[in-house]
Amino acid sequence: MKIAFIGIGNMGLPMAINLKKASLDPTVFDLSVKAKDAAAKEGLKVATSAEDAIKEADVLITMLPASQHVEDLYNGSILKNAGKHCLLIDCSTIAPDAARRVQKSASALGFAMVDAPVSGGTGAATAGTLTFMVGGEKTTFEKAKPILEKMGKKIFHAGPSGCGQVAKVCNNMLLAIHMIGTSEALSLGKALGLDSKTLSEIMLQSSGRNWSLEVYNPQPGVMENVPASRDYTGGFGVQLMCKDLGLAAEAALGTKSRIPLGELARNLYEMHRSQGWAEKDFSSIIKLIHAEP
Amino acid sequence: MKIAFIGIGNMGLPMAINLKKASLDPTVFDLSVKAKDAAAKEGLKVATSAEDAIKEADVLITMLPASQHVEDLYNGSILKNAGKHCLLIDCSTIAPDAARRVQKSASALGFAMVDAPVSGGTGAATAGTLTFMVGGEKTTFEKAKPILEKMGKKIFHAGPSGCGQVAKVCNNMLLAIHMIGTSEALSLGKALGLDSKTLSEIMLQSSGRNWSLEVYNPQPGVMENVPASRDYTGGFGVQLMCKDLGLAAEAALGTKSRIPLGELARNLYEMHRSQGWAEKDFSSIIKLIHAEP
Amino acid sequence: MKIAFIGIGNMGLPMAINLKKASLDPTVFDLSVKAKDAAAKEGLKVATSAEDAIKEADVLITMLPASQHVEDLYNGSILKNAGKHCLLIDCSTIAPDAARRVQKSASALGFAMVDAPVSGGTGAATAGTLTFMVGGEKTTFEKAKPILEKMGKKIFHAGPSGCGQVAKVCNNMLLAIHMIGTSEALSLGKALGLDSKTLSEIMLQSSGRNWSLEVYNPQPGVMENVPASRDYTGGFGVQLMCKDLGLAAEAALGTKSRIPLGELARNLYEMHRSQGWAEKDFSSIIKLIHAEP
Amino acid sequence: MKIAFIGIGNMGLPMAINLKKASLDPTVFDLSVKAKDAAAKEGLKVATSAEDAIKEADVLITMLPASQHVEDLYNGSILKNAGKHCLLIDCSTIAPDAARRVQKSASALGFAMVDAPVSGGTGAATAGTLTFMVGGEKTTFEKAKPILEKMGKKIFHAGPSGCGQVAKVCNNMLLAIHMIGTSEALSLGKALGLDSKTLSEIMLQSSGRNWSLEVYNPQPGVMENVPASRDYTGGFGVQLMCKDLGLAAEAALGTKSRIPLGELARNLYEMHRSQGWAEKDFSSIIKLIHAEP
Repeated sequence: MKIAFIGIGNMGLPMAINLKKASLDPTVFDLSVKAKDAAAKEGLKVATSAEDAIKEADVLITMLPASQHVEDLYNGSILKNAGKHCLLIDCSTIAPDAARRVQKSASALGFAMVDAPVSGGTGAATAGTLTFMVGGEKTTFEKAKPILEKMGKKIFHAGPSGCGQVAKVCNNMLLAIHMIGTSEALSLGKALGLDSKTLSEIMLQSSGRNWSLEVYNPQPGVMENVPASRDYTGGFGVQLMCKDLGLAAEAALGTKSRIPLGELARNLYEMHRSQGWAEKDFSSIIKLIHAEP
Repeated sequence: MKIAFIGIGNMGLPMAINLKKASLDPTVFDLSVKAKDAAAKEGLKVATSAEDAIKEADVLITMLPASQHVEDLYNGSILKNAGKHCLLIDCSTIAPDAARRVQKSASALGFAMVDAPVSGGTGAATAGTLTFMVGGEKTTFEKAKPILEKMGKKIFHAGPSGCGQVAKVCNNMLLAIHMIGTSEALSLGKALGLDSKTLSEIMLQSSGRNWSLEVYNPQPGVMENVPASRDYTGGFGVQLMCKDLGLAAEAALGTKSRIPLGELARNLYEMHRSQGWAEKDFSSIIKLIHAEP
Repeated sequence: MKIAFIGIGNMGLPMAINLKKASLDPTVFDLSVKAKDAAAKEGLKVATSAEDAIKEADVLITMLPASQHVEDLYNGSILKNAGKHCLLIDCSTIAPDAARRVQKSASALGFAMVDAPVSGGTGAATAGTLTFMVGGEKTTFEKAKPILEKMGKKIFHAGPSGCGQVAKVCNNMLLAIHMIGTSEALSLGKALGLDSKTLSEIMLQSSGRNWSLEVYNPQPGVMENVPASRDYTGGFGVQLMCKDLGLAAEAALGTKSRIPLGELARNLYEMHRSQGWAEKDFSSIIKLIHAEP
Repeated sequence: MKIAFIGIGNMGLPMAINLKKASLDPTVFDLSVKAKDAAAKEGLKVATSAEDAIKEADVLITMLPASQHVEDLYNGSILKNAGKHCLLIDCSTIAPDAARRVQKSASALGFAMVDAPVSGGTGAATAGTLTFMVGGEKTTFEKAKPILEKMGKKIFHAGPSGCGQVAKVCNNMLLAIHMIGTSEALSLGKALGLDSKTLSEIMLQSSGRNWSLEVYNPQPGVMENVPASRDYTGGFGVQLMCKDLGLAAEAALGTKSRIPLGELARNLYEMHRSQGWAEKDFSSIIKLIHAEP
């Protein structure tokens, strides 16, 4: 089985390396020379063009920055150059609508395709413990699953085409909301004289419990080995959260949905980003909520 | 040890019954004749007045509706009529500032007192599985703990005077936020074609995880034995959540704190209440987010 | 000078009638048979197809529901069938990005085009007192102006291509914000015992002053001849405001802008719409804020 | 007629000076030595204590920082030391509830009293062009009016006791909302390529019109002689707006009112304050919305 992997940036490279470790030696490509050099240094086979990577592939995996890149690459090249038997797996996080448009075009040409965005960040990509949320036909999902398992730990079938993106966007919006909510609760508690560590322990065992409290406390000094304990470096960046909240808002507009906390979260994260926190971990939002020392 | 219990409504009565079951046979009182009749029917000793209940008590427990009732009862009667050795335990949910004022007055007169608001609702009150969040001196907390253990399962010492209230108010604000956030995520997912049960399962195993998803899913049909599965009856009422969010907002005003999601949650819950949902369970907020069938 | 007018619904029809009154006898077209019949009854010349309307036109005016309709009609027909000398005026309210894409295509083919969305509603369309916010080259604006003056009173040149749409979307977002703000102020005042008429008069002469207070008071009984005085009928519909707030949010997403009040306004209006108020005037939002009688 | 004036800070001093200019030579007092020195330098009669100022007064005017100061001074001294014929005028901006409590106590002792908060800032205080919003009996209002006219231009009777405060708090909340809304509209327009001056002119003549656009544009370079044109100095400070929005939120809590935009405005202004803008003019909020240059 020949695998092609296009888009080997911060996420794509460690994913491709995990495929190689699993003896699924992928042929990779990226428009960035720097990315290609990094891949070559890791011993990966680097193609000279997207077409070169695609032409004999049985499976194609893409990991690209945004909707436009995915639509352009699939419509401009992949759907023209790939063999019809080639299984198409798009791991990019993009708008559900865009994912559905691409999958519809692919399907019309006889391709089997899934959208399979990931969660977990670069740490999980390196460790091979990503979560994949997959949208597409059940049978296509079953074909993609064994390959995704080489790069991840949890592989969910969310539903038909686009549903992987929907699950990702809903999950990350909820993540942003409880991260800000947790920051507000800890900040209010502190202002009222309650130690953040004690309050975190109490809420963890009460109805306020959530993932941010469990494994990602935003207040420095409460947990070890979280971004808050190392000046908010090395986690999931504020600008990536802004991107995901933008996708959630875009999806809400298209369906006339109400997401009042979700859109307020988007605005707060964009404010935070615009004040110089773009590259820091998203749990640093507590600094917007609680500016004073 | 003689225990007096004042305020035997929906919460106070089952709590007093649990004390009786633990052979701590309390003398109870309430201004409501109906409440006193219900207590008598349960075999509880009913005092003829608050003073009558208090006068020989070694421990006094109060469970009252709001700050004003607590301040009036303590300043107007308890601090005048109780013996100085009497341990004072206020289980009402009130403003941290009010709790601190009362505790300061009590302390100035030589009383030991804690604020000990509960979470868990009438179900946990009956089952004796309440959570108590306690504020006050460590030594007073240690004295109150064995008594509270007759009525609850988790007994936290949150910090000095008022910190029980602070913990409660912060926890419940966070609860409201992730309940609305969960409702938004499920609603957005549904609008985009994703089944609520599947999305709930995925988010439960991902970073969106929170208590609402774990044990209290707001979407009918996803979980059994939750208020959403019985037309939002029998849980924690919308108007009680409004009360707690009001206390959170009041505390934020007093400390100039920022709780943007918390105050928006307050407004959304007040809107929901004013549209006829006051008595329904607070997870019914999904109906405000997602009005269409 | 021959004028073609495509899209003769609630807004387009009275606009076309005003052109006829000014002796600029337009040839009109619409996909809806009902709309064509209504136009014929008014004595307007009705074309048999869009192409038929366009073919000999010196000026083409379009008034369509949304971005997609405009892109489809211009790319699918107008830019192929119109004479190159034909001045293109799109009066639809659409996304600034969509307006710019269409204008770019038109320009590449040698057409002069402006985006010229209107404000004022059906009343102003009938009275010929619309406001036009125009985007495009100054010289094209000057050519369009005398024609627009037959249908409106204020004709603004907002800037280059798309800026008419930008001005419209920004203005209407601000309108929604001060309408909700005014509703909150009147509602809070009322709850605190202050008569809405008195409060309106005071704020009108103070720093709270805004267009909603001046000419469109949302509280029934304060002003005569406004939608609030006739059960919120006959004004600018809630669903139209939802559309404009959706365009504002879409524009904010594309530019990573922060519009916290604007997006909250969108969510509140969508809530209101989903609760059965779609067809009522947008000042009825006070009923969402103040549900009790 | 003898007038006493207590509280001669930034606002009180120029108000007292205007009384003196009108030959109503007031006796003034303040706890701050600095304030008393400044008053003496202006030729005002300075009393040695509040009691000294009050004792022979026919009219007493107070201008104090917050609810607590007013309650303490009236209950602790004024209501005990003033003659029963003395007309009491409180010009402080405080919670409507607090104003009503004080006025109730005053009334019970036979005093005639009004709450008469001002708007207009130090500039209007100096120029004698303040707006007074007055709550109290109509006959008391009529007695106070000629005195207030020496310090202000518009004197409104808002309604019974406390209604002056209600009008003030509602007006200023609405002001904050349209100032932020105007900032959002200008910021979004700019991001989409629309010049702020042009957009301001268009919205001023359209339905987005409001006081912020008319006389207080927040974007530097659009208007001369506004705080935005002088680095946001010399206007109505961010921390004063925070205070007023806090009073609005407090009033909303007490009445279970929904003010979603008002409370979000409070949070945004508190964020802005906490990031170092406390002393700057409130129109600087555009910098929170639009951080980039």
